[in-house]
Amino acid sequence: MTKEIFDDATALRRHLHQHPELSCQEKETSKTLINKLKTECAPHQLIEFDHYGIAATYKGSQPGKTIMIRGDFDALPIEEINEFEHKSIYPGVSHKCGHDGHASVLYALARTLNEKPLEKGTVILLFQPAEENGEGAKGIINDPKFADLAPDYVVALHNLPGYPLHSVVWKEGPFTAAANSIIVKLKGKTSHAAEPEKGFNPALAMAEITQAYLDSNVPDLTDPDFKIATPIYTTMGDTSYGVSAGYGELHYTLRAWKNEVIRQFEKDCEQMAREIGENHGLIVEIEWTQSFFANKNNQTVIDAVKAAAEKHELQTIQRDTPFKWGEDFGIFTEKFPGAMFGIGSGENCPALHNPDYDFPDEIIETATRIFHQVVSNLQH
Amino acid sequence: MTKEIFDDATALRRHLHQHPELSCQEKETSKTLINKLKTECAPHQLIEFDHYGIAATYKGSQPGKTIMIRGDFDALPIEEINEFEHKSIYPGVSHKCGHDGHASVLYALARTLNEKPLEKGTVILLFQPAEENGEGAKGIINDPKFADLAPDYVVALHNLPGYPLHSVVWKEGPFTAAANSIIVKLKGKTSHAAEPEKGFNPALAMAEITQAYLDSNVPDLTDPDFKIATPIYTTMGDTSYGVSAGYGELHYTLRAWKNEVIRQFEKDCEQMAREIGENHGLIVEIEWTQSFFANKNNQTVIDAVKAAAEKHELQTIQRDTPFKWGEDFGIFTEKFPGAMFGIGSGENCPALHNPDYDFPDEIIETATRIFHQVVSNLQH
Repeated sequence: MTKEIFDDATALRRHLHQHPELSCQEKETSKTLINKLKTECAPHQLIEFDHYGIAATYKGSQPGKTIMIRGDFDALPIEEINEFEHKSIYPGVSHKCGHDGHASVLYALARTLNEKPLEKGTVILLFQPAEENGEGAKGIINDPKFADLAPDYVVALHNLPGYPLHSVVWKEGPFTAAANSIIVKLKGKTSHAAEPEKGFNPALAMAEITQAYLDSNVPDLTDPDFKIATPIYTTMGDTSYGVSAGYGELHYTLRAWKNEVIRQFEKDCEQMAREIGENHGLIVEIEWTQSFFANKNNQTVIDAVKAAAEKHELQTIQRDTPFKWGEDFGIFTEKFPGAMFGIGSGENCPALHNPDYDFPDEIIETATRIFHQVVSNLQH
Repeated sequence: MTKEIFDDATALRRHLHQHPELSCQEKETSKTLINKLKTECAPHQLIEFDHYGIAATYKGSQPGKTIMIRGDFDALPIEEINEFEHKSIYPGVSHKCGHDGHASVLYALARTLNEKPLEKGTVILLFQPAEENGEGAKGIINDPKFADLAPDYVVALHNLPGYPLHSVVWKEGPFTAAANSIIVKLKGKTSHAAEPEKGFNPALAMAEITQAYLDSNVPDLTDPDFKIATPIYTTMGDTSYGVSAGYGELHYTLRAWKNEVIRQFEKDCEQMAREIGENHGLIVEIEWTQSFFANKNNQTVIDAVKAAAEKHELQTIQRDTPFKWGEDFGIFTEKFPGAMFGIGSGENCPALHNPDYDFPDEIIETATRIFHQVVSNLQH
């Protein structure tokens, strides 16, 4: 690994930061990455998935495990307030979760694996779109072009403001929460506001569903059965004061440490909405959106991460509880033995999604070395 | 009263029907009426209020009571589906409450009082805008130009589909409900959807306010303390599934038979919203809109209406309970002895606010004769 690689990765990171693209719209980002992979990184195979995802494959001369490393590259609908040279040139869109950095780490790995080929096994570098809305990982895992890749292990990281720069944050078992968002549609019937009894007004059903959902919460973070329903959005009726409302919607995000807990919570929430709505004479329709599986850390893979951190003499920090955010890499750890871990972005780094956040370029090298070491550890 | 007057009033009614204007936008309607009053009806005084209201005054040679008769002239945001010659020429706007007819009755009265002057007393014909949104009567009663009119009695009618054509519908005491619409604004604080406990989410407060309001209802129509809160509109948060909601609104229309009951209900609803909201750490703001006083029928005036109906050998129908709709003439019966009554539009006439409704021209003459007789009765 040379200084040139990390200088180039930093330049790429800043280029991506300056040209951010929202989830499912990463056309130029994908084009930039494909171009650099083709012209600078000579992968054995380059797969272009539908909707901008890319896999670059590197093979060693001897057979071995296939290890997939994933980095995402979508930005957020947040107006950047930083004034540095590489600030976002697109109003209202910016890289406020550091996915510009995650993708650049994978580029540095591609350069490294091209310069010094693997001895054994295979590495798949997965450049993933649309993490923020939960569409990216799902799209790739369902893409027929993904079927042949068949990784033995999957690994990903997230940069973590608030933790010491370069520290490695790890946890056995669940690392990030499972999340899913329910949309409850209640169809009643409008009537004259003077005669609500002649229609079917959803107001009381909405109140009862709200209370039933919030009563279901198990908010103790140390409880393995932790689960919470968060009220996101509701709407009912129109501002016509002569009309009793006849339609309402509730949107809630559900969250749990475990996939099996959220699956049961989903069923319970559907059933509560249907029972309450039908008690009030309403037609109930349910939709789901923005589903995230929990990231379940496999013991072999997280051990390889810990060993890599120790080998590179990095501070390691063990989490007691999972992170509460959803991360769509969970769909990969649900299907393949895998792990997600964190790298500290510095204790004074602005929080993720804050308008002044910026990915710290110093950790590109740290992350690249850790991933490279994890690959080596998993082959032995 | 001549056939010519009623033919002209019918022509005016159809002209107004063809050129409907929404509440507070009745510029051309007002111009048409002023022009006809000036050129055909020679009132002793013609007052033009702000926002399109008009009063035409007729005086007898002897002193006597001053009697104000009110007819409204605003239309509704409803697309007409009728195909007759005088159908609305404006998309999405039509006279679906018959105010075109109410104004034309007042025009016929003006013609009549011009042709055959009063013996004694004064008649004020009040052509009123913006009844539907409760702004018209309020605007006129607060207009300095209204102060000098000082009526002894006030009278108005509404045409009533579902009742026999030409029948006179009356009731002692309250004739239409008091209504007022409350807007409860709950200001909390957004937070990450994974950490609702770090923000102030209004969902539970909204559920509790909904239940408190609906629990307050006294829906028995025969109870003089009848009152209902009808859920009209609510909104909370945005469809960003990563953000716990931080703001919500509830819009309710309150309704009661009596002004004193609704005044207390308003106070109770304000207090419930403030207590519940503040319990949940929210800033509570209250606004009111579309206020309608109950129409309270004075015994002398409603007796004069009944006597007029009997004199003209019209069927009279006594209501057991008030109508539940609000009618902004209530602000006049709150301040002056007065009465509101109904004239049947026919049992097969489409309901008010229905897209196929049309004011029945046959009752212009009936209504004109009743009003004329009421004036005479109140002078003796």
